[in-house]
Amino acid sequence: MNIVLIGSGNAATVLGKKSIAAGHEVLQVAGRNEEACADIASKLNCTFTINWNFIDPLADIYIVAISDTALSAVHEQLNLDRHLVVHTAGAVSKEVLKTVSKNYGVLYPLQTLRKENAVLPEIPFLIDANTADSISLIKDFAETLSTHVQVADDERRKKIHLAAVLVNNFTNHLYALAEKFCEAEHLDFKLLLPLITETSERIKTNSPSEVQTGPAVRGDEATIDMHLQLLKKYPQLIKLYEMFTDSIQSK
Amino acid sequence: MNIVLIGSGNAATVLGKKSIAAGHEVLQVAGRNEEACADIASKLNCTFTINWNFIDPLADIYIVAISDTALSAVHEQLNLDRHLVVHTAGAVSKEVLKTVSKNYGVLYPLQTLRKENAVLPEIPFLIDANTADSISLIKDFAETLSTHVQVADDERRKKIHLAAVLVNNFTNHLYALAEKFCEAEHLDFKLLLPLITETSERIKTNSPSEVQTGPAVRGDEATIDMHLQLLKKYPQLIKLYEMFTDSIQSK
Repeated sequence: MNIVLIGSGNAATVLGKKSIAAGHEVLQVAGRNEEACADIASKLNCTFTINWNFIDPLADIYIVAISDTALSAVHEQLNLDRHLVVHTAGAVSKEVLKTVSKNYGVLYPLQTLRKENAVLPEIPFLIDANTADSISLIKDFAETLSTHVQVADDERRKKIHLAAVLVNNFTNHLYALAEKFCEAEHLDFKLLLPLITETSERIKTNSPSEVQTGPAVRGDEATIDMHLQLLKKYPQLIKLYEMFTDSIQSK
Repeated sequence: MNIVLIGSGNAATVLGKKSIAAGHEVLQVAGRNEEACADIASKLNCTFTINWNFIDPLADIYIVAISDTALSAVHEQLNLDRHLVVHTAGAVSKEVLKTVSKNYGVLYPLQTLRKENAVLPEIPFLIDANTADSISLIKDFAETLSTHVQVADDERRKKIHLAAVLVNNFTNHLYALAEKFCEAEHLDFKLLLPLITETSERIKTNSPSEVQTGPAVRGDEATIDMHLQLLKKYPQLIKLYEMFTDSIQSK
């Protein structure tokens, strides 16, 4: 398929690379930031424009990969008539595109995307559209990029996006807090990396609730008290430690 | 080196396998549960005993891999004279072994160990002992099992164990909560696995605080409000969501 990417950030770059790797052609990148557009266009070997009146009319699919805020105003600047247009946001309704084209939908990559990625990650896709024909087209396209494609309406996509916030954003914040604690206590955070890998690998073959370990789940109050003592200087971590301990024990 | 393992659980099994893979010999397993001892002895191709009076006196190192609770009482049942004895607990002082032998220390595997593991994970070790000679011996041994060995006294080991609770036990609980939410909402938790892998992989090359993403860090109040609405039926998750959002935004 021939693709136009609207946006020049992480999602546009990674989806562009994935598409090319799957044999599609990126015709053009349309963005706002000339430098970013030139950069991604050189990576994807395509043209670019910062004037959205000159968007290439010959693509089969227009992928709008811009921030949620920009997306909410995109209908003011983009008119694609009957061309198939999709956005890539987890938490935004497909209806935000309903005045952009007669054929609109969603191609949501359930993955954290960074243009610096040397290796393209596996990306499950949740897709949706306003007609069965468009759903079918988007599904065919998504299945060339991924073995995990599911149709999900706005409500279901928003819920899986919420679950993604828990396991990605909140998990990363736990890592960040642990790193800060290690720095303050002159401990080597990198020593924790094999444990972090193993923790995430294990749930591929086990339900996380079945492999919960640690002082909270075994009711080891002596260790819990000792940890709270060690955290005296870190009120934010004490609050978090107590909440997790309660939550684990309430199960 | 010749090894006797005291304990027959996950840590004993994995450390036994790692030792054999590194060219050491496990002479014997001493435990309390005959069935578990027979099982691990067959895996490690060694003898076993449940009578601790018959512990083989010819080992170079005695590795006590038992629960923290059992460890606190182990001096009542174990006397190893001058033989080098180590325990494997993150949160227990080495002094718990001081009446077990004249030469005692710690060999703490900073990893979550399961005997079911088909592939042995990478294990950083924190080691300690009551004499410089014993530290040196334990270090030499640990370095045959791992490329990451550090000497750390009780205080430092307890602190890194605390950091391990954050990135392993608490992270796993986030996974468990997300799985429960997905089940309740009839969403496919397995779709999140590539994202979970990528989140843990990314911090091998980036500081977690530098790759924080999500609605909290970008101050996206509309999405945060929508998520809290979607969590109405889940008071425990609302509390957790609000605490993480505050914590991420306070940085």
